Amino acid sequence: MSAAEVLSVLQERGETLAVAESLTGGLLAAEFVAVPGASLVFRGGLVAYATDLKAALVGVPLPLLNSHGPVDPSVAAALAAGARDRCGADWAAATTGVAGPDPQAGQPVGRVYVAVAGPLPDHAAVRELTLPGDRAAVRAGAVEAAVTLLAERLAITITSR
Amino acid sequence: MSAAEVLSVLQERGETLAVAESLTGGLLAAEFVAVPGASLVFRGGLVAYATDLKAALVGVPLPLLNSHGPVDPSVAAALAAGARDRCGADWAAATTGVAGPDPQAGQPVGRVYVAVAGPLPDHAAVRELTLPGDRAAVRAGAVEAAVTLLAERLAITITSR
Repeated sequence: MSAAEVLSVLQERGETLAVAESLTGGLLAAEFVAVPGASLVFRGGLVAYATDLKAALVGVPLPLLNSHGPVDPSVAAALAAGARDRCGADWAAATTGVAGPDPQAGQPVGRVYVAVAGPLPDHAAVRELTLPGDRAAVRAGAVEAAVTLLAERLAITITSR
Repeated sequence: MSAAEVLSVLQERGETLAVAESLTGGLLAAEFVAVPGASLVFRGGLVAYATDLKAALVGVPLPLLNSHGPVDPSVAAALAAGARDRCGADWAAATTGVAGPDPQAGQPVGRVYVAVAGPLPDHAAVRELTLPGDRAAVRAGAVEAAVTLLAERLAITITSR
């Protein structure tokens, strides 16, 4: 399911979307905003590139950041939950990871976590990926993985109704 | 001057950068994050796509938004100042405008304002543009214009020392 299809499903449901991004640095937001009519669903996003902004902008708990580091599944989940809250959206997707060229915070290049938060606690999900390629390829792969995880959670929600 | 060159100048000066974006929806942040080593200078960004998020996320005064609408030079300036403040950066660049396909808030497709805020009040600048082309072209043109305006303001500051 593409970003356009995700937006279409959300529009039909009358629900909205936000994002919080680290390594993708705006590319995930741009993927949704590229779709004409995105403003009916997409509210906005937070690019928390510096680690301290993950707390200040998105509300990731500082003790979590300090104990786990920025590239971590719990941090990804907190980024999604924070984006949903700060942007007043029904759903949110988030990315954190190491785009390279150098390893970061004890994690190898290509290690990425994407997360989704939704209206109910059991909508939440986190996925770990190890993506091949250079900085651009890792970032593009992280965007695709975030859209895919969001699509999966939306489909699960539809099925369970 | 490219995004990489802007980051290089800022790194030499020991200064940092943030962005706030409306129509470009993450593309301006992505332009900087695409540069390896961006984390030394680029702190983060706010994608305030929905009008109310320009107030909630970036601190644009609501009376200004209500009286001028979101596509306005004063709003662009407030987005830059707000990004600088919320992200704790020395410099910030901002975009607002109409990417299309439809006109918005009384403004034609292609009308774009880019703005810069810096450490001193006289670093601030706003530029109005009328950009040709489709949604993707207008957004790409807005990113380029924001980087150019930032580069100009940095050069002015260097010259005036």
